[in-house]
Amino acid sequence: MTMTSAQHSCHRVTTGPIMASRKEHQHVEGPAGEDLRVPVRRIGLTDGTHLDVYDTSGPYTAYLEDGSDLHDLTVGTVRTRETWTHPEPVGGAATQLAWARAGTVTPEMVFVAAREGCDVELVRSEVAAGRAVIPANHRHPESEPMIIGRAFRTKVNANIGNSVVTSSVAEEVEKMVWATRWGADTVMDLSTGADIHETREAILRNSPVPIGTVPIYQALEKVKGDPEALTWEIYRDTVIEQCEQGVDYMTVHAGVLRAHVPLTSGRVTGIVSRGGAIMAAWCLAHRQESFLYTHFDELCEILRRYDVTFSLGDGLRPGSIADANDDAQLAELRTLGELTQVARRYGVQVMVEGPGHVPMHLVAENARLAHEWCDDAPFYTLGPLTTDIAPGYDHITSAIGAAMIAQAGTAMLCYVTPKEHLGLPDRDDVKVGVITYKIAAHAADLAKGHPGAQARDDALSKARFEFRWHDQFALALDPDTARAFHDETLPAEPAKTA
Amino acid sequence: MTMTSAQHSCHRVTTGPIMASRKEHQHVEGPAGEDLRVPVRRIGLTDGTHLDVYDTSGPYTAYLEDGSDLHDLTVGTVRTRETWTHPEPVGGAATQLAWARAGTVTPEMVFVAAREGCDVELVRSEVAAGRAVIPANHRHPESEPMIIGRAFRTKVNANIGNSVVTSSVAEEVEKMVWATRWGADTVMDLSTGADIHETREAILRNSPVPIGTVPIYQALEKVKGDPEALTWEIYRDTVIEQCEQGVDYMTVHAGVLRAHVPLTSGRVTGIVSRGGAIMAAWCLAHRQESFLYTHFDELCEILRRYDVTFSLGDGLRPGSIADANDDAQLAELRTLGELTQVARRYGVQVMVEGPGHVPMHLVAENARLAHEWCDDAPFYTLGPLTTDIAPGYDHITSAIGAAMIAQAGTAMLCYVTPKEHLGLPDRDDVKVGVITYKIAAHAADLAKGHPGAQARDDALSKARFEFRWHDQFALALDPDTARAFHDETLPAEPAKTA
Repeated sequence: MTMTSAQHSCHRVTTGPIMASRKEHQHVEGPAGEDLRVPVRRIGLTDGTHLDVYDTSGPYTAYLEDGSDLHDLTVGTVRTRETWTHPEPVGGAATQLAWARAGTVTPEMVFVAAREGCDVELVRSEVAAGRAVIPANHRHPESEPMIIGRAFRTKVNANIGNSVVTSSVAEEVEKMVWATRWGADTVMDLSTGADIHETREAILRNSPVPIGTVPIYQALEKVKGDPEALTWEIYRDTVIEQCEQGVDYMTVHAGVLRAHVPLTSGRVTGIVSRGGAIMAAWCLAHRQESFLYTHFDELCEILRRYDVTFSLGDGLRPGSIADANDDAQLAELRTLGELTQVARRYGVQVMVEGPGHVPMHLVAENARLAHEWCDDAPFYTLGPLTTDIAPGYDHITSAIGAAMIAQAGTAMLCYVTPKEHLGLPDRDDVKVGVITYKIAAHAADLAKGHPGAQARDDALSKARFEFRWHDQFALALDPDTARAFHDETLPAEPAKTA
Repeated sequence: MTMTSAQHSCHRVTTGPIMASRKEHQHVEGPAGEDLRVPVRRIGLTDGTHLDVYDTSGPYTAYLEDGSDLHDLTVGTVRTRETWTHPEPVGGAATQLAWARAGTVTPEMVFVAAREGCDVELVRSEVAAGRAVIPANHRHPESEPMIIGRAFRTKVNANIGNSVVTSSVAEEVEKMVWATRWGADTVMDLSTGADIHETREAILRNSPVPIGTVPIYQALEKVKGDPEALTWEIYRDTVIEQCEQGVDYMTVHAGVLRAHVPLTSGRVTGIVSRGGAIMAAWCLAHRQESFLYTHFDELCEILRRYDVTFSLGDGLRPGSIADANDDAQLAELRTLGELTQVARRYGVQVMVEGPGHVPMHLVAENARLAHEWCDDAPFYTLGPLTTDIAPGYDHITSAIGAAMIAQAGTAMLCYVTPKEHLGLPDRDDVKVGVITYKIAAHAADLAKGHPGAQARDDALSKARFEFRWHDQFALALDPDTARAFHDETLPAEPAKTA
């Protein structure tokens, strides 16, 4: 599966079915009679039965393994949502939130209800209450709608993105395809280097999942990396550029206020969020309040035209166990709660981001405060890492915290790869990060008693007990690795340990 | 560091210091004026300071990297405890428990108090109450005493052991050295193949950590693998053989009663513990109560002569999420509580083993019941795995459960490697398993507010924030991997994700 440079340059991405699986589509009727084709992965078992699982991989797993029938990546993939019809804007907001509040069911709501296996009214009411979001920019018709909210399957985001010195546009498209193959529900493009616009365009046009960004990164490139040179106008134009391209959700660090910055002075690790550090530097240099905060209403007016979802960034998140749940973090969280209400008044969908580094005994408290102060907006966390002492293994230090915070109601988990703190993740790191976070998310779904979650565990355990090795591999989150490990050594006894 | 076959055949093991570290010994006076040399690993930092960390690696990290000054492995390592003096037996029991109850402080108690950085009275009182154990067979003078109990640092066990078809005696010794290098607090030798006695002898004579076994495995080899042919006499003689060699703790599945077996009939994964399956088969074939249960008093009389610690096995532990905390498991746990009291009456130290596969929402309950029903005997769990769907990543599925159950007071965690359910762990798997479990144990210690636990996190985070890369590597659980990941790509920015 390893791509050569030659393959990259002619835009090869990973295609072909996952082991023993076939992509199927459930045909569901939309509100205007649309034929909504809802994807599932059907895992065939040797006992003649099958198990259907949630599928994020888009068309790529339906292509041949050699990619000979792959669509032209320079043109883009199938535009799933292009022909769907949408209601008129409500009070200027053409958003899932505005429609849900008005009692209107959209094709996106029907689609995600079928995907989640729940009633569409649950979807509508959770979106209307702001407890769930459906990130679906009108300009990203290629995406297959999905929902982020505590009443639904816990979701996983994978970060990709080039930097000044590494990787090509084609490599980033492949990372997106690769991450969604293994189950990433959304992908954030955090590119900071050359060709930001072109990279994002290629990702969006080929992505079956919602794409998130951090617009301040591109805005900073426009001022050659000097935070002081940033202006509201440069930022605003960048946001509009990205809205026009089809970005589905955007991290906005509007909660980092000028008054919060001194609260970080006693920290072990200061401000570790890049967006947070940029805005803190701007506030200090200009002795002014953050332009993201003072222009937040204008941002809302822009985002609601496209139905771009806010992901309110935690620019003051702790970068170490020592700084967890401190005054700086909690002051920002209060502001995020205030901004959540502003955005909702405009009909804009909102998620709230969370840390970072948090010891286990503070994890549930962190989620509780976020839900309480931000009126149950979907919580979206990075990890959190539960100890600082294991660089090289931070997918694991953070999987512990991620599983626990998801059990406490966090709706989406941003993955952490083994390269965290050390370097940029390569293809293998992306896969390990996604699989690790699928584990955390699924463990939490089991713990929450999410309907149907245990069916896959039971099917795999039954296969294991009956020595149906092939079925055990097929049902695994990563069939290829399970089979490879098995083939490397001997068939195991039913139990190898006492 | 990869060993060639030639190196193995001349008994090479991994030697040399861990990055930036030097082994030091704290000199502490024993009860009879002994000079107790308590090991620490001193990590030197570039700012001129150092951090001392708990050290399990024995003399191997004090040898040269080329091993030219290594002791003769056929003779064995330094006999740390050989010259220490011990009180007379109390009521027939020459055990730490008996002495602690009598108010007598032993050299072992002084040693572990220094190692843990706590008062010796805490050690004595916890051992006296049965809330902690110091597994230290009189016949294993090579071991450096350590304590297992909820008031102390959470411990990690690594399983090694050959099988019928693989590995040599020398390879198993190297696995023990390798596992303790990365922080394993105890090692269980689960060998089932040829040369069981010789393998164990080589491990014991060279091990700086307590060694555990499951005697039923060797007993079964003696009857050519036929469970029905087992007898109490064969089992008893095996236990005596292993006590004489110096095994420090033994897993005994005496809680699998004849009446429990039918309780497993409705399970998804039946009986997955090898010891449990053997004893269930024996009970069914003979229509008799388990000889481990009916002869438990005799076992106690044997173990107390050597101060071998019971690890009461959970032969009916769940092998899948579906079977967690079911009637079979809980019935056995009740019996383990009863046996705990019997053992303590004989002055024998006792741990109680736990599962296995448990969803997150049942983890704390599992620990609570074990502590309550077994009168706070140290709980020693395998994982537990929090989902069944990720073979190939079960070190991670189980690290989540292990961290949570340790936070709930579990005293020792038995590692799970990436090969769990799939094959036998190799050298890399052993390391990944140990590091993963050190993460889980340490995350729990932080959450429990264990004294001093956060010092290493703070030191590493400070180094990270100040871009002292070398110190960040040196303070990591796995410095080699952290440095390799960093060197593979670019120095990372302070934060790579939003």
